This record gives sequence, structure tokens and C-alpha cells, in this order.
Amino acid sequence: MKTIVWIKHATQLITMAHGNKGPRIKEAMSDLAIIEDGSVWIENGIIQAVGTTAEIEKQFKDRVHEAEITDAAGYLVTPGLVDPHTHVAYGGSREREFEMRLEGATYMEIMNAGGGIHATTRMTREATEDQLVEQAKKRLNSFLKHGVTTVEGKSGYGLDVETELKQLRVMKRLQEEHPIDLVPTFMGAHAVPTDYKGREEDYVNLIINEMLPAVANEKLAVFNDVFCEVGVFTPEQSERILEAGKKYGLIPKIHADEIEPYQGAELAAKIGAISAEHLLKASDEGIEAMAAAGTIACLLPATALFLREQAAQGRKMIDAGVPVAISTDCNPGSSPTTSMPLVMNLACILMRLTPAEALTAATYNAACAIHMEEKTGSLEPGKQGDVVLWEISNYQELQYLFGVNHVKSVWKKGVKVVG
Amino acid sequence: MKTIVWIKHATQLITMAHGNKGPRIKEAMSDLAIIEDGSVWIENGIIQAVGTTAEIEKQFKDRVHEAEITDAAGYLVTPGLVDPHTHVAYGGSREREFEMRLEGATYMEIMNAGGGIHATTRMTREATEDQLVEQAKKRLNSFLKHGVTTVEGKSGYGLDVETELKQLRVMKRLQEEHPIDLVPTFMGAHAVPTDYKGREEDYVNLIINEMLPAVANEKLAVFNDVFCEVGVFTPEQSERILEAGKKYGLIPKIHADEIEPYQGAELAAKIGAISAEHLLKASDEGIEAMAAAGTIACLLPATALFLREQAAQGRKMIDAGVPVAISTDCNPGSSPTTSMPLVMNLACILMRLTPAEALTAATYNAACAIHMEEKTGSLEPGKQGDVVLWEISNYQELQYLFGVNHVKSVWKKGVKVVG
Ligand SMILES: [Zn+2]
Ligand SMILES: [Zn+2]
Repeated sequence: MKTIVWIKHATQLITMAHGNKGPRIKEAMSDLAIIEDGSVWIENGIIQAVGTTAEIEKQFKDRVHEAEITDAAGYLVTPGLVDPHTHVAYGGSREREFEMRLEGATYMEIMNAGGGIHATTRMTREATEDQLVEQAKKRLNSFLKHGVTTVEGKSGYGLDVETELKQLRVMKRLQEEHPIDLVPTFMGAHAVPTDYKGREEDYVNLIINEMLPAVANEKLAVFNDVFCEVGVFTPEQSERILEAGKKYGLIPKIHADEIEPYQGAELAAKIGAISAEHLLKASDEGIEAMAAAGTIACLLPATALFLREQAAQGRKMIDAGVPVAISTDCNPGSSPTTSMPLVMNLACILMRLTPAEALTAATYNAACAIHMEEKTGSLEPGKQGDVVLWEISNYQELQYLFGVNHVKSVWKKGVKVVG
Repeated sequence: MKTIVWIKHATQLITMAHGNKGPRIKEAMSDLAIIEDGSVWIENGIIQAVGTTAEIEKQFKDRVHEAEITDAAGYLVTPGLVDPHTHVAYGGSREREFEMRLEGATYMEIMNAGGGIHATTRMTREATEDQLVEQAKKRLNSFLKHGVTTVEGKSGYGLDVETELKQLRVMKRLQEEHPIDLVPTFMGAHAVPTDYKGREEDYVNLIINEMLPAVANEKLAVFNDVFCEVGVFTPEQSERILEAGKKYGLIPKIHADEIEPYQGAELAAKIGAISAEHLLKASDEGIEAMAAAGTIACLLPATALFLREQAAQGRKMIDAGVPVAISTDCNPGSSPTTSMPLVMNLACILMRLTPAEALTAATYNAACAIHMEEKTGSLEPGKQGDVVLWEISNYQELQYLFGVNHVKSVWKKGVKVVG
């Protein structure tokens, strides 16, 4: 017995359907392939057909009685959102540190009170796998409520062999136990742990000689990410770590040019990274190099807001031909949010993306940034039934009526998981 | 038969209880009067008692069986939020204008396509009362879902006698037909209508000689507000309009120093306005004058974000002794949002309020800004049972886990209206 879902009469059905020709650039980012009075027909979790309601009704007229029907009249329907950059599987919480900072505490006072990234590393090391799974599930539930059906997640709060593996195993369990697709990234090079201070090369070697082989051996990650930044990992160290990962089949990603310009965008293009992240301070040459290489810019405007930094030059990057994706960067230090709708709003407000570009950046291009575009990111026959029904009537309202979660219902692989 | 509601075992019960001694300033803005394992007991819509769960259980032990009980263990409970500055009862929607601007349209192109404030004026004039009521109810429902139980609403999209009165009558109907308390403000001086261009004084006289008497005659407003800004109404015109309103018992408010410094804060203090709004460009002297006069600063950080302006100096104002309130400014041009939770987050991020100050600014001080502090804004015996249950465990998380609506349930006058 097949499970059939029919979502019909959507005022605007945003399909993003254009075949899988790689990430969209320039004008193609504005092409949402909208069907008015649209329908999606899903069988056993896989989209069978997309079209006008009249077309779908005709095609499946003998089987309408078998379908779970949702009438989307008056509403917007889009592909499930994709968040291509999170640190979701971390231990503990740091709201008290946020408060201390606003109360005027100095950096040293916060460090002495056990704050900062090393606080999260400590809490992640101390937590059991079960505890980390439980905490991350709450965050994934919040993602789902915000229309996100696919999430990338990074390790990098372990910073030792054992805890990096633990974080990745937690993500493997989450992938099995939670409806969201969670795509794992190894990020041992997230920071230099305190006990390696002054001997950073030893930590780079630990990553290359011990962590990467262990991660590859257990097949725990798809991507390998590095925080390439002044005072963290140099471009040279980053390149070594990413090249070492390639030998195990791990695809490179780079946290690049976030705080200072550091040739991160250039490096991403040079080594064939699938994406470069942040890019607040990317150089014009770096942007050009990314456009030429087809490197996806994964931009994180909620992080810029939270840190009160100037957001990345999203408008300029799109105009230059860089494929742009956007993400929450969900993490306890610089972006403790799970709202991709807000991130889309901020992409428009702070980076001057158009409403259509912001939606492409949060769906199809985001899927491309984590190699999930054959499964999700658009509504096309053969893809997963990852669908969001929004309580608004057009995609412009999605960005204009900002700061509000307009999600009414969410389907993941054809199963209604919200609303 | 009494209706009894007992919300018990709140991990943090934020009472804000301190008696009604006027708006809170300086350190008092951080005093949330928190009860751990807290309880609220509400009878027929009015709070009867607030205390620890043990205390309340003892006090009402004979009547526990009559109560609708909510177990808030693990959760935060606060007073209902108050939004003291909105333009919620407007006609039409302008999402297409937002998109055009991001697509690079010029100001003139948008005007020619029927955009800007005069577009809203046109759509508000064309709409029937029923249509305006229906559109505003959707927005009020969204406010309610975001934990807001009291809202101020301004006229000012009519700009002629008939439509200003229509907007105020719409608000009167909303007060009767919707659970939210809607406090009405007359704002005929929101803009100079196009047909009065070049004869602004005639419009000022129309407000003073025709609109104000008609509004007062029908008792349609509590406050009288003016957009005092370069190119709109001068401080001298603003003063005349507000003094004229005082003769009818209308309490002054001023949109002040939003775009250019214009002595708006000083004027608010001088004429005894209950609050001054926006204040992005308020002078140091204006801030001192407001502190001395006890004028409430009603700050609108979501508007600053949407317009990409530097937010008002909230931190400096609190330190100077100005009582600060915050608001969405919900309107179709510069802040099309209904999320007070986001506004609290932005007050912390962009204006450096602490999490506690932001909550005070969105509850008790916001109630003071619209003279509702004897009915709402804190959880104290004798006040309305306006209560929010949040799916988080402390008030710091409310600001730290930003961009997410953590509301689980809302009670208005003791009736559960959300969750
Ligand atoms: Zn990151
Ligand atoms: Zn206003």
C-alpha cells in the first residue's frame, strides 16, 4: 500500500525546477519556476509529478481517493529549506555569557567565568553521546518548525580525536533518529585547543595523521572544513589539512575571510572547495576567483547581525557570477539561532539580495553547497518530498513580512512532520 | 461560576512586580522580581495571587479542583508583552515595492508604480471598514502568537477627516472584536497629504480645527501623535497640534529625531509628552531633557534594521536615566513585522540593552508608554491575567536564542488564546 500525498491549489508553487545543472548564478538565481494554482504529487516519499492542479488531477484521477490531500489555496508552497552550515551538535548553552557581555563584562572576565569557544569544547567533551543527541534534537525540531528539512552539521567542538569522533557519531545517530537529513562535516580545524597553544603545527599533524584517518575509517563525514583566519589556521595549514582530507574522499570547505582578509576566498577557488563560508572580508580578486571556479559562497548574515559586523557583499558576489547560498551558522557563540526564514530576511535587508534570490540561496543553491541537490532543494519528479506550506500567498511576503515564521506545514520525504 | 486559571511550577516566573510607581529607570530596569518555581492564580480574568507554587497551593488548597491547571515546569513565564507603537490598521500591502527596491528601482520608479506612504493612504481610503478590520485582525493574531497581549495603534493613513475617523473606528471595532487590548492614537499629522503640498499650514489647521474636535467628540483616541521631522511637520507645527490635542484631553506623543536631529526629544520633554518615538538622531541635550522630564523613549530597532540605519542609543539613554520602552513600529513601509520577540533580541544586539532591560522595555515600561500599567505589564494581584508561557527555561535564553518565537501559550484576561 502506497502512501500518497497531494498538495493542491497552491496560490504560488515555487518549484525551482530546472534540472540539475549545478548551482544557479546571476539571473538564474531569480528564476523560481513558479506554477500558479500548483500541485505536488508524492508517493512513498518521492515526488512523482508537479504541475497545475488541473494537470495533476487529470494525471492521477483514478487514484485521488488514495491520497492524503492538503488544500493550499491562498498559500505559498516551496521546497523544504536547506541549511548548509551549522554547528548544531554542541554541548551546553552560553546565554549567561551573552548577558555578561551586555552587562559590560570584559573579554577576560568572560574567559575567567568559563566563557568562549573553549567553554563549548569543555561542555561538549563532558557530555555523553546521549546528552548531545538530546540537545541537538531540540535544535533540529526548531529547524523543522522553521521549514528546514536538510541541515549540514560540523564537528569542531571536540578538538581531540575522541570527542571529534563522538560529535560525528552523534550526527550519525541524529541522521537515523530524526526526520531531518543531517549531512556531516569534519571540522577538527575549528580552533587550536588550549593545550596546543604555541605548538599549532602539532595540532595540524594530529588532524592529518590521526583524526582524518579515523573519520574516514568510520565513514563519518562527507566534507572537511577549516577555520582559515589570522591567529587560527594559516592558508598554508588550511591547504595541507584540506588536501589531506581529499585523499580520503572528503570534500573541502573553508571558513574564509570572516574577520580579516586572508586570501581565504582565493584558496577556496584554488583547491576546488565546494564552498567558502562567511567571506565578510573577501577581496575582489577572491570573489572573481570563486566565480571562475564555481565555488559556492555560503553567506551567514545572522552571524554578522549578532556580532554587529557588516554583512558579506552578497549583492556584489551574485553580480560577479558567484553562486550564493545562505545559512544560519547555528552555533552557541556567534549565531545561536535556528531560523532560516530570518536568515532569508537578513539576506535581503543586509546583503541586498532580492526576495527570489534569497529563496534560491536557501533552497537549491544551499542543497548544491552540501551535494544534496539530487535529493532535495527543488520540487521535481524523482526528488524527495521535502515541502513547506507557508501561511502567506507569495514569495515576496516571505521576505517582506520579516522576523516572523510563516510556516504552516512541513513534509519530509512525503511525511507531514509539522502542522 | 468562576473561571480559575492556575499556572504553576514555572522555572522562572518574571513578575516585574514593584507596585505602580511609574516607568522604571536605570538599575530598576534590570529588576525582574523573579520567583523560582512560581505560580500565578487568576480568577475571572484578574490575577488574584502570585508566589511560589508552595505558597499558592497552600493559599488556594480548597479550590484547586476548580482550576484549569497548566504545569510550567522547565519553562519561563512572563507578563504578556506590550507593543506601544504600531500603525496596525492600514490598508493593502507593499511587498512588491520591497522587491522593486531590491531589484534596483529608483525612488521615482517606485512612486510611479504607486509606492510609498501615499500608496498606503490610497489603499486605506479605498478600503471599507470591514476590509480594514479583517486585515488588521490577521496582524493582531500574529501579535498574539508572538506573546503580545496589548497593542497601541495609530491612525495616520487617512490624512483626511473621513478616513482618519474611519481608521479610528476600525480600531474601536478591533478592541471589541479581538482579544488584544488595542489602545488608539490619533495621528492625523503622520504626513502631509499630496493635495496639501505647498500649503502645509492649511493641513495643520484642518487637523486642529476639524480632525481633533471630531476625534474627541466620538472619544476615538487616547493619544495624539505627530511626525516631527525635517520636511514633514516642524517643531512649531508639532507643538501647536499637540497643544491643541491637550485641550481635548489627548495625551501627546512625538515621532522625534528619526531621520535628522530636529529638537524632537527636547520638544517631547518640554510639552510633557508621555513618550517620544524613534530618537535615532536625538541630541545629548534632548536625552538629558527627557530624563529630567521622565519622558519615555519608545525605541524601534526593527525599523532601524529594515532601513539599515544605526539604531537609537538605547544603552546611553538608560544610563542617562531615560525610561526606555521598545516596539515593533508595525507598518507597511519601514517595519512590516509583528514580532516583539525579535524586537527584544534587536534591542540587545543593536542597542546593547541587557536581556533583563529588554524584557522590562517590552512589558512594564511599554505599558507605561500607553498608560496601561494599571491593567497590564506585570504579574500582580488586581491586574489582568495577561500571561505568556515560553518554551525556554530562563529570560536570558529569550534574548540569546534570537530570531525564534519561543511562545508556547498565551492567556489574555485569564483566557487561553494561544497554545
Ligand atoms: Zn561556522
Ligand atoms: Zn510610527
